Amino acid sequence: MVLAGGTGGAKLARGMLDVVGPDSLTVIANTGDDIEIYGAYVSPDPDLVTFWLADRIHDRGWGLAGDTFQVMDGLKAIDVEVWFNLGDQDLAIGLERARRLQQGARPTEAHATIAKALNVQATILPMADEPVRTKVLADDRWWPFQEYMIKAGGASATSHRVQDVEFHGARNARPTPEVLNAIATARAIVIGPSNPVISIAPILAVNGMRAALHETSAPVVAVSPLVKGEVVKGPTAAFMDFTGLPVSNDGIAAYYDGLTDGLVADQRTAGLPTLETDVLMATPEDRRRVAEETLKFALALG
Amino acid sequence: MVLAGGTGGAKLARGMLDVVGPDSLTVIANTGDDIEIYGAYVSPDPDLVTFWLADRIHDRGWGLAGDTFQVMDGLKAIDVEVWFNLGDQDLAIGLERARRLQQGARPTEAHATIAKALNVQATILPMADEPVRTKVLADDRWWPFQEYMIKAGGASATSHRVQDVEFHGARNARPTPEVLNAIATARAIVIGPSNPVISIAPILAVNGMRAALHETSAPVVAVSPLVKGEVVKGPTAAFMDFTGLPVSNDGIAAYYDGLTDGLVADQRTAGLPTLETDVLMATPEDRRRVAEETLKFALALG
Repeated sequence: MVLAGGTGGAKLARGMLDVVGPDSLTVIANTGDDIEIYGAYVSPDPDLVTFWLADRIHDRGWGLAGDTFQVMDGLKAIDVEVWFNLGDQDLAIGLERARRLQQGARPTEAHATIAKALNVQATILPMADEPVRTKVLADDRWWPFQEYMIKAGGASATSHRVQDVEFHGARNARPTPEVLNAIATARAIVIGPSNPVISIAPILAVNGMRAALHETSAPVVAVSPLVKGEVVKGPTAAFMDFTGLPVSNDGIAAYYDGLTDGLVADQRTAGLPTLETDVLMATPEDRRRVAEETLKFALALG
Repeated sequence: MVLAGGTGGAKLARGMLDVVGPDSLTVIANTGDDIEIYGAYVSPDPDLVTFWLADRIHDRGWGLAGDTFQVMDGLKAIDVEVWFNLGDQDLAIGLERARRLQQGARPTEAHATIAKALNVQATILPMADEPVRTKVLADDRWWPFQEYMIKAGGASATSHRVQDVEFHGARNARPTPEVLNAIATARAIVIGPSNPVISIAPILAVNGMRAALHETSAPVVAVSPLVKGEVVKGPTAAFMDFTGLPVSNDGIAAYYDGLTDGLVADQRTAGLPTLETDVLMATPEDRRRVAEETLKFALALG
């Protein structure tokens, strides 16, 4: 089972699909970045994982290959400021999700329908059915996550330094029955190489998630998001800075202290048993190899 | 001022725009066909008028010229049954309208913003800000108007004979201040050649609309939707049948009895002063001529 937030976790899940097959793969995805916009209920991380597992992810790293942007163009044509860009197929997915949720479906059920329609056979589970929303304190105001990343230019702008992060609603959210069952019955649990502070932390913040991960007999390992000590993509460094931990594999190991049995990284760490291997996942072969080595490492620790 | 439902009224409004210019043209549009779907708030008749006045109407008679259907294709791709077809630019308009209404705008304000964005300078007014929904009784069940027209195949199917028509909410709806002001200050009021029973009747059903039309000093004339005794387009005949009135200009005159001072039609009628002229509006020249003759006729009656 893979815990995934953004691109790193999705890539690892895609590799794991090759290794264990769809029936044995469950991915728990972060819903803290969900946003209701354009009448749609957009769930970026579960959808990102879905598009990766469907081999439909666009080269740019988000959205669907071949998607068009007619509705965004249509909104601009009537003078709407479009700050959140969404392809037409992506919008259709978000509109259908919103419709199902309005009709009373759980997010877990709504996502399962969408994944099935995209011919994904592996199981992709939202971390919780209750809403959790990641908020970032910067410039002394709380930003919804997407607005912080897009409107404020994200953590790359030093003028918008991360002062705090909150997972609004996490205390009232519970792992779904599907998530609890997946954790309890997993052979191995792999925390994907996603941003620990904003992609994995919201999953862990769900009330009861850490307890479930402690209780399971399955080994828990994390794959480091750092390649040669550097962040591959996204605002991991700025968010690690906020935690006070170093942007290093030691920092990653410290962040997951008490939760994981081992770390997969390209540099040995002080705190945890480490599988030293190249964790860059640029090609399908890389993804498969990292997934396979990670699974073997985890099972050996179990 | 023009009261408009579907295509006939919109065409006449387009002709009237040539005759009186945008500053002197106000169109009151039926909102009984409004529908909330795909996260959008779609207002077919006000939008139809807007697209006509913007010279953007598609040749097929609805939607925008050059529009695409990527989101509808996207919904079909995830196994959604698409019964209500909406172009991408059209969807963008409906999504933006929904957003503005959710933020507390009145439908009148939301539509004004959209019309302005489409460079329409004439005034297009929803008949009321309160929701009114046209329902059709057929097969012993009440259908929302769009579902009746599209899912049941509309009034063309004899198996779905119109048993009754209701304008749900009309009693609690009031003409907006903008509508009342337009009626009170109009030089002439023209009821467009739209379906009397389902396009014009919902406007007249709004509580206080008939009284306002009676009180204004402006002459009120109707343009017949019949050409050589036949319906040009749409289900007028089936709905006229339901009223028990003949599908003829005499029937139209009887339907508007007590409301109008005259009728514009290609055949003389028994009940009302009639301007006999060709009312087919196939070309811009036709539309301008019918509008000009109708206005002259109305002013002569005033």
